[in-house]
Amino acid sequence: MKRVMLVVAYDGTNYCGWQIQANGITVQEELNRCLSKLLKEPIQTVGASRTDAGVHALGNVAVFDTAARMPAEKISYALNTYLPEDIRIQYSAEVAADFHPRYCESEKTYEYRILNRRFPLPTQRLYTYFYHYKLDVEKMREGASFLVGRHDFASFCGANAQVKSTVREVTGIDIEKKDDVITIQVRGRGFLYNMVRIIAGTLIEIGNEQYPPEKMGEILRACDRQQAGPTAPACGLTLKEIKFL
Amino acid sequence: MKRVMLVVAYDGTNYCGWQIQANGITVQEELNRCLSKLLKEPIQTVGASRTDAGVHALGNVAVFDTAARMPAEKISYALNTYLPEDIRIQYSAEVAADFHPRYCESEKTYEYRILNRRFPLPTQRLYTYFYHYKLDVEKMREGASFLVGRHDFASFCGANAQVKSTVREVTGIDIEKKDDVITIQVRGRGFLYNMVRIIAGTLIEIGNEQYPPEKMGEILRACDRQQAGPTAPACGLTLKEIKFL
Repeated sequence: MKRVMLVVAYDGTNYCGWQIQANGITVQEELNRCLSKLLKEPIQTVGASRTDAGVHALGNVAVFDTAARMPAEKISYALNTYLPEDIRIQYSAEVAADFHPRYCESEKTYEYRILNRRFPLPTQRLYTYFYHYKLDVEKMREGASFLVGRHDFASFCGANAQVKSTVREVTGIDIEKKDDVITIQVRGRGFLYNMVRIIAGTLIEIGNEQYPPEKMGEILRACDRQQAGPTAPACGLTLKEIKFL
Repeated sequence: MKRVMLVVAYDGTNYCGWQIQANGITVQEELNRCLSKLLKEPIQTVGASRTDAGVHALGNVAVFDTAARMPAEKISYALNTYLPEDIRIQYSAEVAADFHPRYCESEKTYEYRILNRRFPLPTQRLYTYFYHYKLDVEKMREGASFLVGRHDFASFCGANAQVKSTVREVTGIDIEKKDDVITIQVRGRGFLYNMVRIIAGTLIEIGNEQYPPEKMGEILRACDRQQAGPTAPACGLTLKEIKFL
């Protein structure tokens, strides 16, 4: 028996998120199905991040246990021949039997992309959120600076969350603009439900000058979801990387 | 009666190319249908570039004549509310009654994008050609330099072409690599059928060192399609811009 880790990239457009559920097809379901076929035994994966419907990933992480004799590092290549083309394994390796992608300490990097221009671009529509009004990137950076550090992020937590504590640590937020695309990169140790999308939605309200950057500090201190901006659409979000510490 | 020009962006994935045909839905067909609905008269567009099935555009150009009173510059906004989300008008304006997007002198810029890495990335699969083997960008640039200028491009012309002359002028080719994506930008006054995709397919054979860069000169002089590389897949190609001179 060995434990194998997979780094998984996917286009979330056509999935009801990561986690297996009754409403529709999920990434985890496709992974389990294809792994079971490849390794000829029933396989159950555990994911590091249970991304929402429509959210993309370049580097989600999953582990599973198997008695199969195929070398762990070959599984990436073999599994890709079974998977649909909107899921692709980037890496596979054997890990310690007690490695758990959710309980081991990690830093995750999410990227929220906004297409900020006059008209939508069809070739960007699946991987960015189109926003028509002018956004001031400098003000967005100022607003983001209030969030870095260890705080109670209750204002940035979606309603469906069932967690004991809403305290989390954001280790950095970088905002860059290249051509028409504004990229908000958020790094942190664990995130609340919808946290990055609510941060993005609030930064947009600062970028469009509905609120001054300092408002972000007030919103954070309020610990009240009603104070923050809307949850920005799923298609703009990508889980970029997970580093285990 | 006035003549209106549209700058049209589209994701070519789900279309049988630009030009109306019996095999399936095309971009021109969708444009004509939505324009006719919007302006309440039968509209026929003429396109600058009849892109192939699966090829994308950021700036194809179409013109049509209409008696409708809607100001030309408003048509972009109004038409976008009728079009499917994989087609978006970027600009509309009235032009001279004798302006014809195919017979007026122009320079077109095409971009061919190659995703050059170990494993495919699902979020790039629709807009790049995934190529696994190592490509030497410097050698590709050397090879491309043989093509710049006015030449007989018969070696780079698809079999279905019905043209009097295969002489064309390529005004520049720039090849850049950023992260895992190699972008081949080709500018020229008119192109032959499949010309950019055959150039890309041949540059890949030079980049992977199957042929030395000088081979590109020989292929060009041969005026024989059999000498050039394969036609690279449509999904990697985007018509970026058309400048009328």
